[in-house]
Amino acid sequence: MIIRMEQFGAKSEQGFDNTLAVRSALDSCKELEGAVLVFPCGNYHFWPDKAVEKQLFISNHDQEGLRRIAFHLADRSGFTVDGQGSEFIFHGPMIPFVIENCSQVLVRNLVIDWEEPMFAQGTVSRADHESFDIQMPEGTDYKVEDHAVWFTFGGKPEKVWGLNEFDKQTNAPAYQSGDQLSWGNYSKVRIEQSRPGVITFQGDNMKLPRIGNLIVMRFGRRENPAFFISGGENVSVASVNVHHAPGMGLLAQWCTNIHLHQFNVMRRPGSDRIVTATADATHFVYCRGKVTLDHCLFENQLDDPCNVHGIYARITERLGDDRLLVELAHDMAKGIKIANPGDRLEFVRRDSLLTYANLTLKDLNVLNKDYVELEFEQQLPEDMEMDDGVGNTLWQPDLTVTNTTVRANRARGFLITTSGNVRLEHNKISAPGSGIKISGDANYWFESGAVRQVIIHHNEFTDCNYCCPEWGKAVIDIDPEIEWPKAYEECYHRHISIEKNRFVTFDTGILYGHSVDGIRFVDNVIEKSDSYPPHHVMAYPIQLKACKNVTIAGNQWPNGTQTVAWVNDEERKV
Amino acid sequence: MIIRMEQFGAKSEQGFDNTLAVRSALDSCKELEGAVLVFPCGNYHFWPDKAVEKQLFISNHDQEGLRRIAFHLADRSGFTVDGQGSEFIFHGPMIPFVIENCSQVLVRNLVIDWEEPMFAQGTVSRADHESFDIQMPEGTDYKVEDHAVWFTFGGKPEKVWGLNEFDKQTNAPAYQSGDQLSWGNYSKVRIEQSRPGVITFQGDNMKLPRIGNLIVMRFGRRENPAFFISGGENVSVASVNVHHAPGMGLLAQWCTNIHLHQFNVMRRPGSDRIVTATADATHFVYCRGKVTLDHCLFENQLDDPCNVHGIYARITERLGDDRLLVELAHDMAKGIKIANPGDRLEFVRRDSLLTYANLTLKDLNVLNKDYVELEFEQQLPEDMEMDDGVGNTLWQPDLTVTNTTVRANRARGFLITTSGNVRLEHNKISAPGSGIKISGDANYWFESGAVRQVIIHHNEFTDCNYCCPEWGKAVIDIDPEIEWPKAYEECYHRHISIEKNRFVTFDTGILYGHSVDGIRFVDNVIEKSDSYPPHHVMAYPIQLKACKNVTIAGNQWPNGTQTVAWVNDEERKV
Repeated sequence: MIIRMEQFGAKSEQGFDNTLAVRSALDSCKELEGAVLVFPCGNYHFWPDKAVEKQLFISNHDQEGLRRIAFHLADRSGFTVDGQGSEFIFHGPMIPFVIENCSQVLVRNLVIDWEEPMFAQGTVSRADHESFDIQMPEGTDYKVEDHAVWFTFGGKPEKVWGLNEFDKQTNAPAYQSGDQLSWGNYSKVRIEQSRPGVITFQGDNMKLPRIGNLIVMRFGRRENPAFFISGGENVSVASVNVHHAPGMGLLAQWCTNIHLHQFNVMRRPGSDRIVTATADATHFVYCRGKVTLDHCLFENQLDDPCNVHGIYARITERLGDDRLLVELAHDMAKGIKIANPGDRLEFVRRDSLLTYANLTLKDLNVLNKDYVELEFEQQLPEDMEMDDGVGNTLWQPDLTVTNTTVRANRARGFLITTSGNVRLEHNKISAPGSGIKISGDANYWFESGAVRQVIIHHNEFTDCNYCCPEWGKAVIDIDPEIEWPKAYEECYHRHISIEKNRFVTFDTGILYGHSVDGIRFVDNVIEKSDSYPPHHVMAYPIQLKACKNVTIAGNQWPNGTQTVAWVNDEERKV
Repeated sequence: MIIRMEQFGAKSEQGFDNTLAVRSALDSCKELEGAVLVFPCGNYHFWPDKAVEKQLFISNHDQEGLRRIAFHLADRSGFTVDGQGSEFIFHGPMIPFVIENCSQVLVRNLVIDWEEPMFAQGTVSRADHESFDIQMPEGTDYKVEDHAVWFTFGGKPEKVWGLNEFDKQTNAPAYQSGDQLSWGNYSKVRIEQSRPGVITFQGDNMKLPRIGNLIVMRFGRRENPAFFISGGENVSVASVNVHHAPGMGLLAQWCTNIHLHQFNVMRRPGSDRIVTATADATHFVYCRGKVTLDHCLFENQLDDPCNVHGIYARITERLGDDRLLVELAHDMAKGIKIANPGDRLEFVRRDSLLTYANLTLKDLNVLNKDYVELEFEQQLPEDMEMDDGVGNTLWQPDLTVTNTTVRANRARGFLITTSGNVRLEHNKISAPGSGIKISGDANYWFESGAVRQVIIHHNEFTDCNYCCPEWGKAVIDIDPEIEWPKAYEECYHRHISIEKNRFVTFDTGILYGHSVDGIRFVDNVIEKSDSYPPHHVMAYPIQLKACKNVTIAGNQWPNGTQTVAWVNDEERKV
C-alpha cells in the first residue's frame, strides 16, 4: 500500500516544517505491513521542535541527552520510504532516520542535508612562525569572546574545540596536518579577532597551516547521525546521498543483515562546503549476518568511512561462582547492549587480548548505562582477572564491501574487527591514515575483536598515509593493542589475504602487522607516485612482527619483482 | 511481610555501597502487597555508580539528563520503608527516593544526608568599597581557575555561579542580601585567589557582604531532590529528616493524596553546614485530593519551603476546530504532563489571567517535552488567542499545613496557587521574603492557578521580608502577574481569609494584594520588633488594589486598634 505524503500535508516549501506531516503519516500505517511512504520529488524541511523525542544510546556517539527524530520507525515489518529523489533539509540537532527493531525496511532515493552544518570553514590568510589568521567568508555569523570562537547550531551557542586543515588543491586533509590543532592542542592556542572577519590564532610550537588552505572549525557534539539503526533485521538504504550530518552518516548496532547500495556520504555537487558528516560515514557495532556495502562513496567526512566491531566489556567484580559485574568502559559505549541470554561470550586478557575461556550467558541484568551483571551457564574461569575483557562471539557479521570509493576524509579507511568473513574487493581507497586498519583493544576504545578471515583483493589504494603516523603507519595496518606481541605463542588475528591489489604510494609503508597467524601478500602491484613528499615513517614496505604462516610472493614493486621486508625480526627478500 | 535489609547484604559501614543490596531487596518483593523494608538502625552509604538509571521529567528542576536512583519504587501497592532511625548518606548526583505510580506507600524513620554537599561555604574576612575576601575553611578542596571558583561534586568539576550571604548571628540570609551576588550579577564579578584559602571578589556597584558573615557558594544544577513522587496515590513520608539534597527536599507531581508528618528539611544538629536542600523544601505540581503537612520543619534551604501549583501551557497553534497545539514554555516545566483525557481545562488570557472558556479534553498527543497536541470534546472558543494559557481545573489539591515551622531559608514562605481548599493554621513562619505568596502567571513561570478558598488562621509570622522587595513586598503578598489589574471587572483570586494571626515585624508591610474578590483581614495582632532596620518598601501596612468584598476589622496594631490602609486607590482607616 502506498502512503502519499502530500495527503498528510507534506509541502516542498522553504520555511515549512514537515515533522508533523511525517508523524501523522507514520502513525497512520503503524500496523500496515508492506507500506510504502512516497514523497513527491521536492525539497522538504524539518525542524526538531515538534519531532519525536527519545533517550537513545548510540554507540560511538556522545551519549547524554534526549534526541529529536524526524522519521522514527519502530517495530515495523515491511516498510519503505521512497523520496523519489527528494531533498530532506534538516535544521539544528536532530536525527533524520531512527530504525529500531524493524525488519524488511528500505529507505531509498533521497538526499539528506542540513541548512546550516555543525562546522564552519575559513581560509588561511596569513601565517608566520607562531601565529596565523583565518579569514571567514563574508556574512559568517560568529563571534570571538572570552578568547574563544563561537558559532550557533540549532539556536545554541557552540564553542570551537578544534581545527582541521584541508588542502585547497586536493580538497582533502592537508599533508601531515592531522589533529594537531584539535582538543588539547587547540585549548592552548590564544585566539583573538584581529579585525572584522579575521581571527588570529597564536601559540608556541603550533602546527602552522599553509596560506590559502581551508580550515574547518569544529564545534558541537557527536550526537545525531543521519541514520541510526538499532536491532531488527534486513534493513537497506539505497540511492541515498548524505551531504551532512552532525554525527555519523549511518550507525547500526545489534542489527542482522544490513545492505547499503549507493549510500553516499558525499559533498553536494557545486557546494563550497568541504566537510560532509562530522564523524564516520558508516559504523557497525555488534551486528550479525551480512553487512554489505556496494557502489558507495564516502568522502570528506570527519572520521573513518567504515568501522565494524564489537565491544569488550571490562570485568570489575566477581559476584559469585557464575556471576560477575562488567563495565562499559568507554564513554561512547555507555548504555550499549553487550549480549542476549544464550550468547557465547569470550574472556580475553587485558594485555594479550587472547581468549582464555568461552562461556554461555544464562541471564543478564543491566544496572545502568555503566554496569551490567552477567550470569553464566558455567562456572567462571578460575584465572579470571579484574580488567580482563568480555566479548560477544555470536554477534560478528560478515562484511562485504565492493565497488566503493573512500577519499579525502579525516583519519583512516576501513576499520575491521569482526570474526565474520570479510571481503573487500574492487574498491578505491585513499585515506590520510591507513587505508585498512585491523586493530582490537581492551584498554582504551574497547573495540573487539579478532578477525578470522579477511579477503582484500583487487582494490586500488592511492596515496594513503599522507597524515602519518597519527592515523596509521602503513596502507594496511594490523595493530591490535597488545603490549608485547612477541610474548605470546598464539596470535590474535588470523587469515588475512591481500591479493592482486594496486598500491599507488608516495611513501614506503605498504603493510604493517603483528600477532597475525596466516597472512598472505600476493600478486599485488606497487607503484610510485610523487603526490606528496615521502615521510619515511616505515623503513621497509612490509613490516611484520610475531606473525605466523607469512606468504609474500608474486608482487611487483616499483623497482621490480622483489624488495626487502622486515619479517619477524629479520630482513627478508620478498 | 517484613523484608530485612541485612539479609540482602546491607551494611552500616563507611565505604560500603548499599545500592545493590537495596536493588536486590526491592526486586525480591516487587509483587508483594504490604511489604515492609526494614533497616537495622545504622549509617548506610549510597553511590550512584550502580544505581537504577532513568530519564525523569521532574517539575521545577533542571530537566536534561538521566538520573540515578537509590530507592526506585514503581507500580507498587502497600509498601513501607522503615529506616528505624538510620542515616542514609549519599555521594554525588543521585535521587534517594523515586516513587512512581504507587499507592499506599510510606517512608519513615530515617535521615537523608550527603557526604559532600552541592554547595560550599566560607567566611567574609575583608570587605572594602569594591571588593571582599572569602576565607575558606582549612582543607576545603577547591580551585580558582580562569577567573572562576571550582569545586567538585560526584567527581565532576562544578563552577560557582552565585553567592548567598548568611548572617553569622541568626544563621539566616543576611538583611537585604537577596540574590544580588548570583547569576547575572555574579558573572560580572572579577575573581582571584589572593592567597591560599582566600578568594577575592571584585566588582563595581557590587552588594558587599558583612565581615564575619557566612557566604554560601552555589554550584551544580537543580537535578536531584531527596524525594520525587510522580503519579499514584496515598503516599506518606513521616519522621524523615533531610539534611541535604542537591535539589528539592520533596517534589510531587500528579499524585493524589500526600501526607507529610514530621518531614523536616533541617540542618543537622551540631553541624556547621548552613544550608540544607539547594532548592525548595516541598513542592507540589498538579496534585489532587489532599496534600497535608503537619509538624514539619523547613529551614535554611535555598528556596521556598512549600509551593503548590499547576502549569499553564501556552497556546501556540490552532490545528482545527477542536484541536490545538500548546507548549510547555518554562524550561523547568518541560516534559511534565498537563492533563489526562476527560480532564476539564480552562482557557485563560495571557494578560488578565481570567478564564474565558472551560472545555473537556478528549485526547492528547505528547509530541515531545516541549509540545502537546490537545483535542477537545467541544469546539475551541472563537476568541482564543495565541499565547493564552491552558490550565487543568481538575488537578487542584486541597492543602492543609499545620504546626509547621519555616525559617532562615532563601526566598519566600508558602506559595499557594491551587483552587482547592487551603488551610494554614498554627504555623510559625519567618522568611526573608513574603511569608505567604499567592501569585499565578502565564508569562514567565507559567505556574497556575487562581485560589478559591484560603484560610490563614492562628499562625505566627516573625520578621518576614528582611530581604525586600526582591522576594515579596509584604508578609502576605497576593500578586498574580496581571499587568493592569484594575482594567478587569472580574478578579483572579477569591476568598482569602486571614484571621487571628500574630504578626511580629520590624517593618510596615503586612498585606499586599490585587485582583482578589473576598479578602478578610480580621482579629489579627500586629507587634513591632527591632530585629532589623525598617526598609519601608510599603508605605501602608495594608495595600489592596482592584479587590472586592474587602473586610479589615478587629485587628490590634502596634499603636492601637486602628491604622490607615490603602484600599482600592484610597486611604482608609481600618
